[in-house]
Amino acid sequence: MKHLLSTHDLSIDNIVAILDTADHMTEINARPVAKVPALRGRTVASVFFEDSTRTRLSFESAAKRLSADTMTFSAASSSVNKGESLRDTIETLSAMGVDAFVVRHKSSGVPAAITQWTGASVINAGDGWHQHPTQALLDTYTITRSFGLKDSLQGRSIAIVGDIKHSRVARSDIDVFTRLGAEVILVAPPTLLPHNIATWGVKTASSIDEVVGKVDVLYMLRMQFERMDSGVIPGLAEYSSRFALTPARARLLSPHALVMHPGPMNRGIEMVVDPSDLPGSRILQQVANGVSVRMAVLFTILGGGATATLQQGVDA
Amino acid sequence: MKHLLSTHDLSIDNIVAILDTADHMTEINARPVAKVPALRGRTVASVFFEDSTRTRLSFESAAKRLSADTMTFSAASSSVNKGESLRDTIETLSAMGVDAFVVRHKSSGVPAAITQWTGASVINAGDGWHQHPTQALLDTYTITRSFGLKDSLQGRSIAIVGDIKHSRVARSDIDVFTRLGAEVILVAPPTLLPHNIATWGVKTASSIDEVVGKVDVLYMLRMQFERMDSGVIPGLAEYSSRFALTPARARLLSPHALVMHPGPMNRGIEMVVDPSDLPGSRILQQVANGVSVRMAVLFTILGGGATATLQQGVDA
Amino acid sequence: MKHLLSTHDLSIDNIVAILDTADHMTEINARPVAKVPALRGRTVASVFFEDSTRTRLSFESAAKRLSADTMTFSAASSSVNKGESLRDTIETLSAMGVDAFVVRHKSSGVPAAITQWTGASVINAGDGWHQHPTQALLDTYTITRSFGLKDSLQGRSIAIVGDIKHSRVARSDIDVFTRLGAEVILVAPPTLLPHNIATWGVKTASSIDEVVGKVDVLYMLRMQFERMDSGVIPGLAEYSSRFALTPARARLLSPHALVMHPGPMNRGIEMVVDPSDLPGSRILQQVANGVSVRMAVLFTILGGGATATLQQGVDA
Repeated sequence: MKHLLSTHDLSIDNIVAILDTADHMTEINARPVAKVPALRGRTVASVFFEDSTRTRLSFESAAKRLSADTMTFSAASSSVNKGESLRDTIETLSAMGVDAFVVRHKSSGVPAAITQWTGASVINAGDGWHQHPTQALLDTYTITRSFGLKDSLQGRSIAIVGDIKHSRVARSDIDVFTRLGAEVILVAPPTLLPHNIATWGVKTASSIDEVVGKVDVLYMLRMQFERMDSGVIPGLAEYSSRFALTPARARLLSPHALVMHPGPMNRGIEMVVDPSDLPGSRILQQVANGVSVRMAVLFTILGGGATATLQQGVDA
Repeated sequence: MKHLLSTHDLSIDNIVAILDTADHMTEINARPVAKVPALRGRTVASVFFEDSTRTRLSFESAAKRLSADTMTFSAASSSVNKGESLRDTIETLSAMGVDAFVVRHKSSGVPAAITQWTGASVINAGDGWHQHPTQALLDTYTITRSFGLKDSLQGRSIAIVGDIKHSRVARSDIDVFTRLGAEVILVAPPTLLPHNIATWGVKTASSIDEVVGKVDVLYMLRMQFERMDSGVIPGLAEYSSRFALTPARARLLSPHALVMHPGPMNRGIEMVVDPSDLPGSRILQQVANGVSVRMAVLFTILGGGATATLQQGVDA
Repeated sequence: MKHLLSTHDLSIDNIVAILDTADHMTEINARPVAKVPALRGRTVASVFFEDSTRTRLSFESAAKRLSADTMTFSAASSSVNKGESLRDTIETLSAMGVDAFVVRHKSSGVPAAITQWTGASVINAGDGWHQHPTQALLDTYTITRSFGLKDSLQGRSIAIVGDIKHSRVARSDIDVFTRLGAEVILVAPPTLLPHNIATWGVKTASSIDEVVGKVDVLYMLRMQFERMDSGVIPGLAEYSSRFALTPARARLLSPHALVMHPGPMNRGIEMVVDPSDLPGSRILQQVANGVSVRMAVLFTILGGGATATLQQGVDA
């Protein structure tokens, strides 16, 4: 595995292997000295053309726990402002000795384009509406491990609530969840569903109320404020009346059901309930698992993936 | 010791123990390889909601010399701009595996609030007018070591000059200096003294001239430009005429007297003299000691404080 | 060697020694674990008062490969905005324990001034129109190694094209290239040549066409957009007609000739050709060599320069 651009590039075996490796990483992260020398001498460059401190810090923490060096490139303070092309930027950083690029860009397809300009590995950290593959892996890791599962979501029902149409998280999650056998139900206004939804192998619902008592996982998406003004939804109050998780709705969840959110949450918009009041919330577990899963991805791509080498700690 | 929120949380024994540990750190910083593996595998996150490159770099240097990993979060480029709450930000970073937060915020009490949202340690790096405890520790370290002292400032006289009312440095310093037995004299216009000053166990003076020949330490505070317009002081010229350190005043200092300043200095405002002309200036020593003292604080909180382990160096 | 402020401070023997050390660094950078412990425990501070992500990341990568710690100070987010003087900033950072400052400033002479305020080493990473010595070293390294040379450019002809007058790269390159015996030809409009050019020991030409088939190296400078409006050149179209590298001109280059550029390139301005179409392009090799040469400079200054110690790798 050289790049991670899309969940579509991953077979079920690939996914299961990465999540198994993430188990090793979770064990490392619980050690008194939470660090291994596996990627010493390697350089991981975060190249974020769209700001996301949360995702960048998660990847950089993952890299550091594997003893890789990190290099942070943000578009705001770079030669991109001097008119340097994206290609020249990548070629320049690559020539400095980058082993893997972690790329966030507002346009779909940019991470794939970057693979043409460098011999280094490229990991998609979110491109437009397209894909966010490590988010799907960490979400799948969170669900499977919460339910004591390893390689299947057969028989599990997962509702994804919110703006499906513009969400790379939804696209990535749906692909992995359905291939692992889960039943996926999209809960959104028709204007926030993609046109070709019929081909996705999913069900739909028009309100959380239709699904809340039945599902194993309620996955809340972030409502983008900027969509509010765009005419695709009638208004905040009406949106919340059908698509927000409220305390009343939360009380209807099955006792074993999980509540998830990719963050950052909009409290008072889609999250009217305080997640710390929900025993089934796995929202902070998703963040913690994000570091383990990104360690697993970096190690699979740059370290050869032979997990026996992870037994060695750094000298403490 | 789990957190460091305020000097009020520290007993005199705590203070003396931290300064003793800082002596070990000063010795480490003088080694050819100025680094120890004491905090390898630990993560220290700087979370600065108010900009202070100086304080942030001091803490991050301290963390790196102890081989901790660092994570920098600045409010300007974060999800805080996407409407994420302070609590969600802290919970998210904490879930990534932070061992200690170093927090600067313009509002008093924020570091204390943060301890409710994380299992990690919290170190107050300055909150509003309230406290800046590591500044008080490094100032105390600088004064005691300059005078060959260890655990007392008995019999020493320290004048603090400037805007006491709005200064967290002054509040923190006064608490520690007085508890260690020093006589503290506040030199400020009445409008820049707090209302409850009578309860603080300090003296006051209305001009540097009243104290300059008598004190062991002249501690100059930074004059905040923004106060100048607020009507609390008559004007820059009048302020300087009574509260600035000029060459003429500096000549009246006792030969053994120290001149200190928390930085950054306003040359031409409170510092009309060039400190490099003053043999008694300890202003740069304060900066150097800041790294040692912050190493001691991090090591006390995260490393258990058993200084025997500091003998080991990193492989060089 | 304590500082690197200007190529004028370097004897030919100094230059040859640094480039020899860079050969060791190139070998290290090709290792599976591309890192050595040579500068463990040392701190390299990047102090950039003028933005240059490219140069900063190159120096920081070099420092990290030698296991030094790095500290990044950018003027935009610092006390410089609170009115702190340049001197106070440097003295403060120095007191924190910096071993070498890497300085970029828009004014000539600032790096030299900084040596007066710190006991640390100072490396000029570009000051005004004055000097950019590591660029000259990496350019010389690129040319000599491309031609299988070690310590001389005797008999080689190098054309430098563009805004010579305002270019620290040109000044630095010309000094080193001519002292190593190369023939240097400056290709520029008269308004973009310095007044004292007669004393520089170089030839001039008024169009690329006069030199393109004859030279061993065609070195293209970046055209500063802001000069376009200043009246010193007639206009973009006329400038490009004589000073841009076009595909037609590139076809006239000698088969062995190199094309170089310090970056970032202005595609469509001075670089109308795509450098990836040019077999003689060494533009990305310059970037890669930049890391090796900067490692050599840091190691010469901070590590004593005894290259035998570079055989040791970090534990992997």
